[in-house]
Amino acid sequence: MEQTKVPIYSSERIDDLLNQNLKIIQSEEVFSFSVDAVLLSRFCSVPVRGRIVDLCSGNGVIPLLLSVRSKAHITGVEIQERLVEMARRNVRLNRLEERIEIVHEDLKQYHLQSGYGQFDLVTVNPPYLPPGSGDRNMNEHVAIARHEIKCTLEDVIAACGRLAKSGGKVAIVHRPSRLADICTYMRKYKMEPKRIRLVHPKKEAEANMVLIEAIRDGKPDLRVLPPLIVYNDQQQYCDELMEIYYGNKG
Amino acid sequence: MEQTKVPIYSSERIDDLLNQNLKIIQSEEVFSFSVDAVLLSRFCSVPVRGRIVDLCSGNGVIPLLLSVRSKAHITGVEIQERLVEMARRNVRLNRLEERIEIVHEDLKQYHLQSGYGQFDLVTVNPPYLPPGSGDRNMNEHVAIARHEIKCTLEDVIAACGRLAKSGGKVAIVHRPSRLADICTYMRKYKMEPKRIRLVHPKKEAEANMVLIEAIRDGKPDLRVLPPLIVYNDQQQYCDELMEIYYGNKG
Repeated sequence: MEQTKVPIYSSERIDDLLNQNLKIIQSEEVFSFSVDAVLLSRFCSVPVRGRIVDLCSGNGVIPLLLSVRSKAHITGVEIQERLVEMARRNVRLNRLEERIEIVHEDLKQYHLQSGYGQFDLVTVNPPYLPPGSGDRNMNEHVAIARHEIKCTLEDVIAACGRLAKSGGKVAIVHRPSRLADICTYMRKYKMEPKRIRLVHPKKEAEANMVLIEAIRDGKPDLRVLPPLIVYNDQQQYCDELMEIYYGNKG
Repeated sequence: MEQTKVPIYSSERIDDLLNQNLKIIQSEEVFSFSVDAVLLSRFCSVPVRGRIVDLCSGNGVIPLLLSVRSKAHITGVEIQERLVEMARRNVRLNRLEERIEIVHEDLKQYHLQSGYGQFDLVTVNPPYLPPGSGDRNMNEHVAIARHEIKCTLEDVIAACGRLAKSGGKVAIVHRPSRLADICTYMRKYKMEPKRIRLVHPKKEAEANMVLIEAIRDGKPDLRVLPPLIVYNDQQQYCDELMEIYYGNKG
């Protein structure tokens, strides 16, 4: 896909977005995408058409990646104005203005604008860390993206429940330490966990990431997919990650 | 350890219990232990001393295996008289009468006899299947051990919560399809899931078993341990199972 020229600010850079023929503007000081967002974009069950919303959308990496997998209209919701502006440039850069809209809104309020139950899929890579933990010198943009400052995990899952239509999917990536919280909040807000995948850095290591997909008003029945083991015994990326990053199996 | 002679009925046989220098009476028609019980016995965090209770104890396989790992006094609770009697013979067979007691009781009632909050560890390998599913020609003993006929999953987890002392452990093995239910019920009855291990038949297969340990009145923080992959690419038991079954690494 051809790219459009858009302004780039100091501290920003334009990177290739995996092997997807997409470009992405990011910045270590403001927001740069993680493997978590990449894996969530691959894990979730996308509708062929319809509407997708991505919460805590950052620089729009998940909407960009989902645009390759689905013809659905995709809305990215982001609370930080600086990131909204970056995400909008990313949409223009990739000429995806007709497919992706970036909305500057608090996820706790977005249903007032969009209406309840309007989306076939809700994705979210929320802040993982408790407020106040971590490096105090971290700048505000990064702190808000990583810490539960503007929203708690319960706020996030409650928002997913308001936005997904009955039978629609909700896909979240988080730390395994919060898995019991995620299951509990999903049920509280009427989503049933249906698919889980654990990500382990090595086969002998504890999981450091969990991908979980629920169905709004779904029936109980959970599948735990094969584990994703990031590095093999030779300290190389596993085939699955080689394919994601380089489009081949190494 | 020396064994005592005990009566054996037709359909029963005496087997070696793994590599543990233990013998066990079992019967395909009544009750025979599964890898699930074996893995639960290894997975749970045992107290050095104190008291352990094993619910849905069957022929007493879990108390026998735990007696090798801990000096605690172990009570097995079983609702089926035929299995209680078999489990008591297993205790005598292994001369463990001073360490293991088998109680004929319904787990929904056992707290009335034992008191609340008396145990450092509660283990349970409960019936997995909904009532009425599966082979209708199955005999009653096997049906009760495998199906939720005499107790539901919620009954089981509620009983664990009554029996564990504050800070005590609760360890369950079940099918992954019930993981969200288990997390929800554990929290409802004041146990916090702390350690999970998924068991996959092969590395490319979905999990077919989940081991989960909670702490009564614990704080939220869950670890997902490395996956247990039962068969390697050569269709042989992995090292961990070789060691469990044969006491060596193949």
